[in-house]
Amino acid sequence: MAGNRNPMRIIAVNAGSGSLKVSLFEVVPQDSMAEPREPLWTALLDTTAPDQPPDELLVSLDAGGISSRLGSISKDTPAETRIRGMLALMTRDSTLGGKPDAVVHRVVHGGERYTEAVRMTEEVEAGIDRLCAFAPLHNPVNLAGIRVAKEIFGDIPHVAVFDTAFHQRMPRYAATYAGPREWFERGIRRYGFHGTSFRWAAEYGAALLGRKNDPGLCLVICHLGGGCSLCATVGGWSIDTTMGFTPLDGIAMCTRSGSVDPGILIHLLREGMDTDELEELLNRQSGLLGLSGISGDTRVLIPLAEHGNEDARLAIGVFRHRLRRGIGGMLGSMGRTPDALIFTDVIGESAPSIRAAACEAFGFLGLRLDREANEAGSADREISCAESSGRVLVVRSREDWQMVRECAALLGDPEKSL
Amino acid sequence: MAGNRNPMRIIAVNAGSGSLKVSLFEVVPQDSMAEPREPLWTALLDTTAPDQPPDELLVSLDAGGISSRLGSISKDTPAETRIRGMLALMTRDSTLGGKPDAVVHRVVHGGERYTEAVRMTEEVEAGIDRLCAFAPLHNPVNLAGIRVAKEIFGDIPHVAVFDTAFHQRMPRYAATYAGPREWFERGIRRYGFHGTSFRWAAEYGAALLGRKNDPGLCLVICHLGGGCSLCATVGGWSIDTTMGFTPLDGIAMCTRSGSVDPGILIHLLREGMDTDELEELLNRQSGLLGLSGISGDTRVLIPLAEHGNEDARLAIGVFRHRLRRGIGGMLGSMGRTPDALIFTDVIGESAPSIRAAACEAFGFLGLRLDREANEAGSADREISCAESSGRVLVVRSREDWQMVRECAALLGDPEKSL
Repeated sequence: MAGNRNPMRIIAVNAGSGSLKVSLFEVVPQDSMAEPREPLWTALLDTTAPDQPPDELLVSLDAGGISSRLGSISKDTPAETRIRGMLALMTRDSTLGGKPDAVVHRVVHGGERYTEAVRMTEEVEAGIDRLCAFAPLHNPVNLAGIRVAKEIFGDIPHVAVFDTAFHQRMPRYAATYAGPREWFERGIRRYGFHGTSFRWAAEYGAALLGRKNDPGLCLVICHLGGGCSLCATVGGWSIDTTMGFTPLDGIAMCTRSGSVDPGILIHLLREGMDTDELEELLNRQSGLLGLSGISGDTRVLIPLAEHGNEDARLAIGVFRHRLRRGIGGMLGSMGRTPDALIFTDVIGESAPSIRAAACEAFGFLGLRLDREANEAGSADREISCAESSGRVLVVRSREDWQMVRECAALLGDPEKSL
Repeated sequence: MAGNRNPMRIIAVNAGSGSLKVSLFEVVPQDSMAEPREPLWTALLDTTAPDQPPDELLVSLDAGGISSRLGSISKDTPAETRIRGMLALMTRDSTLGGKPDAVVHRVVHGGERYTEAVRMTEEVEAGIDRLCAFAPLHNPVNLAGIRVAKEIFGDIPHVAVFDTAFHQRMPRYAATYAGPREWFERGIRRYGFHGTSFRWAAEYGAALLGRKNDPGLCLVICHLGGGCSLCATVGGWSIDTTMGFTPLDGIAMCTRSGSVDPGILIHLLREGMDTDELEELLNRQSGLLGLSGISGDTRVLIPLAEHGNEDARLAIGVFRHRLRRGIGGMLGSMGRTPDALIFTDVIGESAPSIRAAACEAFGFLGLRLDREANEAGSADREISCAESSGRVLVVRSREDWQMVRECAALLGDPEKSL
């Protein structure tokens, strides 16, 4: 595979707890993959999208900017059946082309074992399965996607990339919670997530700064989407991050609480709440949604807050506060002024007022936004002004493209693809 | 009381979960109480002290630097009996003088209701009692101290100061956890603790900086003792702190974990741990003690770490990391370079290497320690060098003196003492 220049067709399967996204990319592995590339098409099934018919989940298709409805799937089907239905819709549709050359899957929890992309084997599958206990909302869905894709596409390379992989070089002291020492040995440690997004933002952010592959480059990256986490990187690797053992730790999110006083959980347990209720409460009824009682979506809350809605204002206020405190924490961890602060993913890309609030708190470091560039511009851009002593970037989140890059690099490396 | 210049004898009762400290101060309420003052004597019962006889707790007395043994109390007596025994020992001892003019008690949890020192009434007692649910390890002991003191000293003014009071002007967004909105209404919010210590450190620190009562003064105060918490102050009031609903939140401590991923608690519950075990684990078997498996005392661990003991090194490494991250968080919250970073309480006063590690991380702000001043000097001193752009202080923790100051101020104010 390393010698030819035939294009490879790689399908990226991104199966989350609330959405399923499948994209097709065509790449020539020998070409540079430093620049972002668009997929030929993307099919999306989003259980959290508004305007869904009552009993169905719509599968939409976007090909070269043209959206269409690919079909629908009954709402009460389990994750595995949904993924099967969706891949079946795609293979049935002749416009979507024939069999791919490889499939790459995003897996949320790779534990300590998986520090980079790997080809799926029975052993890897068993490894992902074992890690379900650590990511019960995510790994089982990821595994379902892998099994269905193998069933449908058969004997082509299947590759897994892990959200945790980017953080596995973190120093031991940053990966260790201040609990009993046996926790670490039992796998109860900080893993960190959103690694695929952070890796792309770090690499492409560095390129935008003209400092590609610079070993001394220090970045603080804010991945602000449905889940939100921050990462401090030095020389292209994570040295600290706000998510931890699970994707519940850290700053406030859309429906997740982030870190709370452990004493609150103890108090709620004493009041009679059980473990399942606690998990549901902190994962799905907290964050922006819990605080506002209105929505977990900043696109709804920010305009409401600006028009004086007190509940929306409090929710956005807490979100901003936790973001500022979190960025400060990453600075303390890094012990250096970062070369750039990078915003990525839906909120990071679409909410200038959140970016402005975060940067304002670090005016003392000399950060100065270019107001116009912050308000609008291309997906990937610098938003700090020329006098700013540190640079601020918006980098569009491209998890699927990053998955394809890692897949192509793995398959293009004869030592690893054997 | 406001008009005369007779000295007042005030007893400060500081009843913690692991120690009981009673001090006698003599003050003239009209005099300035800006400078630190030593008590006439301090009696100490420390359940965590080494070298105790097997079944007894020693009560030691320190008067003007001369230590003696006042007596001992059987180990298995409940907190209330211990306090009674200790106060009885003191009143029996003729060298300790007669009846005091007032007693001031430190109460850990004052909830939202108590934002400053108050005279004890039945209503206040009931209020402290109601807050036992929020501080089950502390408020019942504080209440026992108050009841016993009333029994022994009778109808003199009894005053309570609250650890939470200093933080009650914190902005709502900083006091709100990103959980469901009804939490705040139900009292599940960030209260913050160590307020008596922070208040003294902020006031006396400001005086050392020559900036007393400056409304723009910004400080980050690190209270590092058995419990550890950080506080950002602006104009003499807390705007954010690391402890929260309970004294378990925040940075790593001697035996407490500080903040951990809430997902860890859910995981441990699923593994069969119950609520009491979780509370015990996170409060008493975590932090420096849990990580090292050796001790929760930095005076034991730092030398071991310096001599290459890996367990001690990890424990100190995690402690330092969480401290740096926490200080950074306070900076993000403040959004300004602080005028000074202040260290207080046992670890803060006695561990130059911890202070150096914390300051090193903020070299990018221009903080530079004076190495000699950091290594040794008087209890209260500046340890930054002349070229440092921000100042760094060590301020000796004087909770008891601060309690007495607040008590005298309250009793000296005719409007409040009615």
